[in-house]
Amino acid sequence: MAYNKTLPKRSEDLSQWYNAIVLQAELAEYGPAKGTMIIRPYGYAIWEEIQRQLDQKIKADGVENAYFPLFIPEALFNREKEHVEGFSPELAIVTIGGGEELSEKLAIRPTSETIICESFSRWVQSWRDLPIKINQWANVVRWEKRTYMFLRTSEFLWQEGHTIHATHEEAWGMVLKAMENYTTLYQEVMAMPGIVGRKSETEKFAGADVTLTYESLMAEGKALQSCTSHDLGQNFARAFDIAFQDRTGGRQYVWQTSWGLSTRAIGGLIMLHGDDRGLKLPPRIAPIQVVILPVRNEEPLLEFSRSAADQLSQAGFRVKVDDREDESLGRRINKWEVKGVPIRIEIGQREMESGDLKAVRRDTGEVVSIRLGSLVNQIQELLDQVQNSMYAEAERFLQENTREANSYQEFKDIMTGPRGFIRALWCEDAACEAKIKEETKATTRCLPLDAPEENGTCIGCGKPAKHRWYFGQAY
Amino acid sequence: MAYNKTLPKRSEDLSQWYNAIVLQAELAEYGPAKGTMIIRPYGYAIWEEIQRQLDQKIKADGVENAYFPLFIPEALFNREKEHVEGFSPELAIVTIGGGEELSEKLAIRPTSETIICESFSRWVQSWRDLPIKINQWANVVRWEKRTYMFLRTSEFLWQEGHTIHATHEEAWGMVLKAMENYTTLYQEVMAMPGIVGRKSETEKFAGADVTLTYESLMAEGKALQSCTSHDLGQNFARAFDIAFQDRTGGRQYVWQTSWGLSTRAIGGLIMLHGDDRGLKLPPRIAPIQVVILPVRNEEPLLEFSRSAADQLSQAGFRVKVDDREDESLGRRINKWEVKGVPIRIEIGQREMESGDLKAVRRDTGEVVSIRLGSLVNQIQELLDQVQNSMYAEAERFLQENTREANSYQEFKDIMTGPRGFIRALWCEDAACEAKIKEETKATTRCLPLDAPEENGTCIGCGKPAKHRWYFGQAY
Repeated sequence: MAYNKTLPKRSEDLSQWYNAIVLQAELAEYGPAKGTMIIRPYGYAIWEEIQRQLDQKIKADGVENAYFPLFIPEALFNREKEHVEGFSPELAIVTIGGGEELSEKLAIRPTSETIICESFSRWVQSWRDLPIKINQWANVVRWEKRTYMFLRTSEFLWQEGHTIHATHEEAWGMVLKAMENYTTLYQEVMAMPGIVGRKSETEKFAGADVTLTYESLMAEGKALQSCTSHDLGQNFARAFDIAFQDRTGGRQYVWQTSWGLSTRAIGGLIMLHGDDRGLKLPPRIAPIQVVILPVRNEEPLLEFSRSAADQLSQAGFRVKVDDREDESLGRRINKWEVKGVPIRIEIGQREMESGDLKAVRRDTGEVVSIRLGSLVNQIQELLDQVQNSMYAEAERFLQENTREANSYQEFKDIMTGPRGFIRALWCEDAACEAKIKEETKATTRCLPLDAPEENGTCIGCGKPAKHRWYFGQAY
Repeated sequence: MAYNKTLPKRSEDLSQWYNAIVLQAELAEYGPAKGTMIIRPYGYAIWEEIQRQLDQKIKADGVENAYFPLFIPEALFNREKEHVEGFSPELAIVTIGGGEELSEKLAIRPTSETIICESFSRWVQSWRDLPIKINQWANVVRWEKRTYMFLRTSEFLWQEGHTIHATHEEAWGMVLKAMENYTTLYQEVMAMPGIVGRKSETEKFAGADVTLTYESLMAEGKALQSCTSHDLGQNFARAFDIAFQDRTGGRQYVWQTSWGLSTRAIGGLIMLHGDDRGLKLPPRIAPIQVVILPVRNEEPLLEFSRSAADQLSQAGFRVKVDDREDESLGRRINKWEVKGVPIRIEIGQREMESGDLKAVRRDTGEVVSIRLGSLVNQIQELLDQVQNSMYAEAERFLQENTREANSYQEFKDIMTGPRGFIRALWCEDAACEAKIKEETKATTRCLPLDAPEENGTCIGCGKPAKHRWYFGQAY
C-alpha cells in the first residue's frame, strides 16, 4: 500500500507531522501576513459542520445570532480594568482610515464583551427585557508573531455567546449549559474526550469571576484548552452600567456570561486523531465520510461507483467518487488516507460483478465485507462503529495519561517524562502556581466542578490544600 | 388600529422613514465607531436566510467555501494597478500590532482578489487543476464617514466568489451563472425586481474587464446597485502570475471571475417594501412569517394559539406566538406591523370556539378567513399570494418609473421630477458621462446584455450612439 514517504512520522515529531498534515491534507496554509492562515475548502468544511451542529444547539437554548462591529474605539475597550489589562498586549490597532490619521484609534476586537455591553446597557430597562441571549459567528484578532495553524493564529474564527440575566443563578445555568453544548460537540461529534472544570484565578478570562474550560489531551501529552464559558458576574455590568428595574421597582445590575469555541477546535481534532499515514476524521465531523475509488478509469466501473455513491448520498451520507484519471489507484488511496476519510471502498471488476464490496476503515485499517444490497445499512453501522471506537481509543489514551502525583519529585518526573495530565493537591496560591510553572512548564488546567474536598498539603509548597487540580503543559 | 405615530411618513421622507424603521423594527443600530453598524437579531435573521438560500445555490455550482485572512500586506494589495487605485482611498490600515509599530502596514480587506490570487498562483499548475471555484462569507471594510445603515457602512458582511478557468468562455459562463443566482434570489425570494446589465467603463469594478450589475429601483426613484459579478479577464492573472500548463504543454494565464452580494441587499429590501406603518417583508425571506396574537393573556387562548402555531411550525413555517402580557393587543399589533411580518392572526374567544380564524395580510391589510381544519394549506396559499403580489407590485413600480428620454431637456426634467430609470442613447464616452452626472446627478446604471443595436445620437453630447443605457440617481 502506498503512503506518503515525505510525511514526518507522527510518533517521532508530532509538531512537524501536524504542520505537514495541515498542508498536505489541504486543510490550511500560511497567509501572507505574519500570524495569519488561509483555511482551505477541506478545512473550512470541517468548520461549517461545527457551525451547523453548534448553531442548532445554541438556538435551541433561545440564543439569537447577531453581528457587532469589528472596530472597537479605544475608550470603550478600556472601560473594564481587568479586561483591558488582559487583552491590551494582543491588540491590532487601526490608526489610518480613508487616507487620514484617525483622531480615535480603533482596536480590532479580540473578543466582543465591551462593544456588546455598550448595546446591552441601552437594550435593557426592566426585568421583562431579561434574559437577553446573543451569539455571533465572527473573526477576532489577538496578535501572534508565530503561526501554529488553527492552534495559534492572529486572526481566528469563532462563535462568542453573550448573555445577561436577572439573577446569578440563571446566569450560572447558562454558563453550564454552554459548556454542556460544547462537551456534547466534542465528545459525540468530534470524538474528543476532555476534562470540564474551572480555571484558577491566574488562568481565568480577563474580567470573569469564574471561567469553565474543556481541557483535551493531545498525543504528545500536552493539554489543549478547547473552549471556555465565563461567569462574568457583575463586573462588566458595573463598568458599562447595565442595570434593570426589578419586580419591586429597585435598580439592579445584570448578571452576565460569555462563552466561545473557535477554529482552534480543528487544531485539536487534527492533533488528537491521526497516525503516520495522515489524518483520521471521526465520521460525524468528516466533510467526506466515504470515498469510492474505481480501480481503473473505465465506464462500467465508473457507472457502478457513481450509482453506489448516489445510494449513499440519498441516504444522507457525505460521499465522493474519486475517478481522477491522471492519478494511479495507489496515489488516490494515499491522498484519501492523508485526508483522513473514515471509509474507503475500491471498486474493481470482481466487486462490480459479485456485489461483494470491501470497505476499509481508516482508523484501524480493518477490511469489512459489504453486500451491495445492504450498502446503506452496513455503512451506517460501520460509521457508527468507527465513531465509537475512535472515541473509546481517545478516552483510553486520556485515562492512561492522567496520573496522580503525591510528591513534587513525582510531579517533576512525570512532566519531564510522559507528561499528560497530573491530578495533584494544590493550595490555590498564585505565587506557588507560578513557581510550579517555571520549574516544570506545567500550569493548572482546571478543577473539576464535582471535585471532592480533601485535607492534604500542596504539591508545590506544602501548605494546606483542599482540592486535587489538573495540571499539564499547555499549547 | 394602533400605529406608531412617531414613525416619519414614508411617502414624505423616505430616508427619515428608513432610518426610523431600521431602529424601531430592531433590524440594526449605529455602532460606537463612526461608519459602523450593529446588526440586531431580527436583521441578522434576514441575513441568515439570504446566506442559507444563496449558499445552497453557490455550492450547487461546485463552488467551495474557504476563508482568507482579514489582513492584506500593503505590497500584496498594491500589485494590480487599477485595483489599488480604485480601493486605496477607502482602506483602513493597521499600523500597530501586539504593542509594536509594524514594519509592514496591513490593509484590512476591502475585497479579497489580491490575497486569493496569491494562493491561486500556488494552487494551479496544470489544466487538470482548473477550474478552481472558491467562495467566502466574510466581513470587509471600505471607509465611510457617514453611516447609512445596511446601505453604506465602513464594515459590511458579504459573500465573495472567486474563480479561475482555463478559457474565457468558461469564465464568462461563471460570471453569468453567479448573476443568475443573484437574480433568482432577488426576484423569487426577496421580491425585488431589477435590471441586469453591464456597467460602463467608469462605473465598473477596479481591475475588471466587464462588471455585471443588478440594479433595483427604490421608492423615491433612486437606483441601488444590488450586487455585482465581474469578468476579471487576465488582469489579476498577469499581475499575480497565475498560469497553467495547457493540454498541449503551453503556458497560459487563467481567466478569472469574482462576484459578491452583501448586507446592502437588506437595505434594498427595507427601502423597496414598506409603508407608513412600517416594514413589509416578503414571506420567503421573513424571519417570522406568521405571528399569532392571543387577544388576552388567558390560558385557554394561549393554549389554542400555541397549538395552532405548533401545527404551522411542524409544517415548516416560521411562526411566533406573542403573548407578552405587559403589552396591549394594539401595541403588539403595531409592533409586528412595524416589523413587517406578512401574516397576523388574532385569537379571541370567538375564534377559539368557532375555529374560524381571521388572517390579516401585512402587504394589503386584507382580512382572509381561515378554517382551523385547513390551517396549513390555507396559510401556504396565502403566503404564496403575498409573495407574488409583493413582487408584482414592485415590478409595476419599476415599469411605471422607467422612462425613455429622447432629448437632454426631457432627461433633465425627469431627473428633477419623478426620477426613476431613464433609458437613453449614450455615446459611451467617459467625459460625456461625467457631464451628465454633474448636470443631472444621474449616472449610467447599466446596459442590458440583450440590448438591441440602434443608430442614433447621444442624449448628452449628440455624438453617434448605438445603445440605449439605463440612467438613474444612485445611493
